[in-house]
Amino acid sequence: MTDSFTLHQRLASECDPVASLWLSELLLMKDARFPWLVLVPRRPDIAEIIDLAPVERAVLFDEIVMVSEVIKAVTGCDKLNVAALGNQVRQLHVHVIARFATDPAWPAPVWGIGEAIGYEADVRDRLIGEIRDALPD
Amino acid sequence: MTDSFTLHQRLASECDPVASLWLSELLLMKDARFPWLVLVPRRPDIAEIIDLAPVERAVLFDEIVMVSEVIKAVTGCDKLNVAALGNQVRQLHVHVIARFATDPAWPAPVWGIGEAIGYEADVRDRLIGEIRDALPD
Repeated sequence: MTDSFTLHQRLASECDPVASLWLSELLLMKDARFPWLVLVPRRPDIAEIIDLAPVERAVLFDEIVMVSEVIKAVTGCDKLNVAALGNQVRQLHVHVIARFATDPAWPAPVWGIGEAIGYEADVRDRLIGEIRDALPD
Repeated sequence: MTDSFTLHQRLASECDPVASLWLSELLLMKDARFPWLVLVPRRPDIAEIIDLAPVERAVLFDEIVMVSEVIKAVTGCDKLNVAALGNQVRQLHVHVIARFATDPAWPAPVWGIGEAIGYEADVRDRLIGEIRDALPD
């Protein structure tokens, strides 16, 4: 079922790969302002959570919970923002964003706020390493 | 477990009640620009999905799917937006919003876009009635 899945080019260009989970590719948005993960189920032509098969939805929800716990543990954030929007990139993807009361968008959502600021390579690599270490085997 | 749950006053003032589901209160945002439902688990002092017990999370996810299917069927929307943000109202609540390529925020998210426009009472009552009719017994 996965052979025709291709990551949307905008997600591919705006994110760095972190891990391949059971169902989803786990990505890190290239924006140092917010620790911002994106889950993309490896299923072609799916725009909505409700378009997934029930078992796939259950796995996606497990992955959302797992990734939420990981990013909270790694960052010590004040709040998690979890969202499936997809108005611009129709391929189903779920944002899991660590928010801080001191971040440049707070308390607004992050979308459409200013311009992304790229990570320093060592900061990005350390964050991705910490996330990978915190994921269950 | 539910005896100390009180709906946050801002959700209570900005929404109309639609139904009491197994776990959550189902509300309709008082904003005729977007068919916009909100699920609020009847659990006190919970800010994050991951703060719920695992069985409660599973019920919440079932309710998100159910409400997503209902609002899509009732409105024929182009896209669903599903989000748990809570930066301003900390009480856990999940937005399930029917989006149209013709709506006044598209393709941006709805938060922080202009001012809410109240429903005409008959339009609101018809929408709430259609949603209730589409919910499983």
